Amino acid sequence: MTTVHVIGVGMTRFGKHPDRDAADLGAEALLEAIADSGIDPRAIEGAYCGHVFQGMVTGQRILAQVGMAGLPLSNVENACSSGATAIREASLAIRAGEHDVVAAIGTEHLTTRFTGALTPDPSDPEAAVGATMPAVYAMRARRYMEEFGMTREQLALVAVKNRRHAASNPLAHFRKEITVEEVLESRPIADPLNVFDCSPVTDGAAAAILVSDRMLKRLGNGRAVRLAASSLFTGSVDTEPTSMTFEPLTRKTAEAAYERAGIGPEDVGFAEVHDCFTIAEVLRVEGLGLFGQGEYPAAVERGEADIGGRLPINPSGGLLGKGHPLGGTGVAQVVELVRQLRGEAGERQIEGARVGLAHCRGGKAVGIEGAACTVQVLVR
Amino acid sequence: MTTVHVIGVGMTRFGKHPDRDAADLGAEALLEAIADSGIDPRAIEGAYCGHVFQGMVTGQRILAQVGMAGLPLSNVENACSSGATAIREASLAIRAGEHDVVAAIGTEHLTTRFTGALTPDPSDPEAAVGATMPAVYAMRARRYMEEFGMTREQLALVAVKNRRHAASNPLAHFRKEITVEEVLESRPIADPLNVFDCSPVTDGAAAAILVSDRMLKRLGNGRAVRLAASSLFTGSVDTEPTSMTFEPLTRKTAEAAYERAGIGPEDVGFAEVHDCFTIAEVLRVEGLGLFGQGEYPAAVERGEADIGGRLPINPSGGLLGKGHPLGGTGVAQVVELVRQLRGEAGERQIEGARVGLAHCRGGKAVGIEGAACTVQVLVR
Repeated sequence: MTTVHVIGVGMTRFGKHPDRDAADLGAEALLEAIADSGIDPRAIEGAYCGHVFQGMVTGQRILAQVGMAGLPLSNVENACSSGATAIREASLAIRAGEHDVVAAIGTEHLTTRFTGALTPDPSDPEAAVGATMPAVYAMRARRYMEEFGMTREQLALVAVKNRRHAASNPLAHFRKEITVEEVLESRPIADPLNVFDCSPVTDGAAAAILVSDRMLKRLGNGRAVRLAASSLFTGSVDTEPTSMTFEPLTRKTAEAAYERAGIGPEDVGFAEVHDCFTIAEVLRVEGLGLFGQGEYPAAVERGEADIGGRLPINPSGGLLGKGHPLGGTGVAQVVELVRQLRGEAGERQIEGARVGLAHCRGGKAVGIEGAACTVQVLVR
Repeated sequence: MTTVHVIGVGMTRFGKHPDRDAADLGAEALLEAIADSGIDPRAIEGAYCGHVFQGMVTGQRILAQVGMAGLPLSNVENACSSGATAIREASLAIRAGEHDVVAAIGTEHLTTRFTGALTPDPSDPEAAVGATMPAVYAMRARRYMEEFGMTREQLALVAVKNRRHAASNPLAHFRKEITVEEVLESRPIADPLNVFDCSPVTDGAAAAILVSDRMLKRLGNGRAVRLAASSLFTGSVDTEPTSMTFEPLTRKTAEAAYERAGIGPEDVGFAEVHDCFTIAEVLRVEGLGLFGQGEYPAAVERGEADIGGRLPINPSGGLLGKGHPLGGTGVAQVVELVRQLRGEAGERQIEGARVGLAHCRGGKAVGIEGAACTVQVLVR
């Protein structure tokens, strides 16, 4: 079976782009990824485009904008894991021997398409009773505080850390550091979560060029990063019935990825995880086995998750700091992993990074119908 | 490389289902496909769900309904080729060695989600000037009449044929035969097309269970049908600049499928093609090389495309007769191919069928930005 490598990445600035659309942003990211890879664009044989709200044939509109119409392209959607799903499907097309060079694109013009309620469907029974994303994560935060003694200040420190990381990322939505006090005094959303505990409504796109072993040998690209695993699972109440403070779906997806990559969580040097809310980062790193259950808040307080710490989490700024354009997010995580692993992350470079992990979690927060979880492992 | 086989198929009745939704319809089709395959549902390792308008994580909602949450699933979208794309991606996951048994589902509750303008995006410039699907196909019909001397009656005969086929399909949206006169007297939509020249707004779902060679050997399923090719390409004005009456994208996709399957158009015994309008069937069968350019209308008149004719086209009733639930369509074509190739098509059985072809064409009709075309070849 062929191994899959990432040879080029690109992304737009994340933020508000009132004068752009999802196809235009996707085209910018794709062109940058192609230039970064050094490959002749005519060598690209197929493409995948992840997005949630952008309407039909969005990926085709991107290809048409950059003069690449004609390629096989599939649009993919898995809620907030849509971009990560594009990476996964691109890697399967290469492993199948269908293509040797595939582009994975993730894009979202969320500011024009977000209706204010991120729920699987207007008919969703949980959303109808008010169990929207912020409400569910707020309950999980409260429960976690009860079970593990996390303080409100510790929770706020997740946002403070990620905004600090974002401040050194020129493409991040937020470039200004914030303090614990500012988090605690920011506008309440769903107690205990305030607005600075929540990822913003962001426009943006990212892209990556993936190749087979065979093609990498032909190209001789010395900056390639190996996609050692790309795991996807879905979830529901059946798969996650027991706890508000632990994510069996994240654990299961991570275990499959570790097995495929031939590593354990102890080998991971840094990670981009789906911090759609401050509490979400806590649940994810513990679900991934990167920190013991109940231990992450204190670890953040000790600086272990900082760039320069023992195990940097969300060096890009994460969803809280860099922003969260749904379809763009999963691909942007891979962009960050590649830049870190190549030593091209500038001010926010993690020293000696060899193994990076990216985690996305889309759909329902506690798993009643419709979650999708992805874990990707990249190795230099 | 492993070969991919279809071991089970299922579909709902196509029509109006005011008391159902897309997930519910998808679940019914999936359960039928599983039962038809005879496989233990726990052997299914992954799934793909094609739809256009059903909102996020639709496929996950289907899995949750049937107690199969947890599987890897990706939702895919390629306009009217969405269901066919689910088949293609399922086959790639098998060829990649990622899974041995994969479910492909296509679903659409179009009656509740159709806004009346099937255009890639509200900002689409062609739609803004009135170049909607019926308008563009009407222009193509007029041009074809000019170039090849097709009569209005010949065009109507395509609808008459497909409605006749649908009359013997218990799952079709329309079960009543119509006459040329009824087509000509039906409500005008875009001259020369009347409402009976247009596929209806239909709810429905279909599903197929695909397996690897290895798994087929283990199962010893004697009713399996081989997926000999599953091709996908996108198009734009760059790829189809020259003609209103010929489809280079359909030709290119077909040629790739013929090459993969090791056959030529002369080996195809029958076909399901994307007859979203009467004129569309004409353009597709000629684009596929099944009939010479300009020759199809007379061939229909001679009965060559009838069940029992030389080369039956749309024995299921096609989009015009069976109905067109966007995401459901491409998978439903595969359901028809499998049933015909197994000799299980009842009243509408084609004698001696060995090779069937399915063609979908989604997105823009003349190829400005955003078309997606698929061709699948199934062999018994």
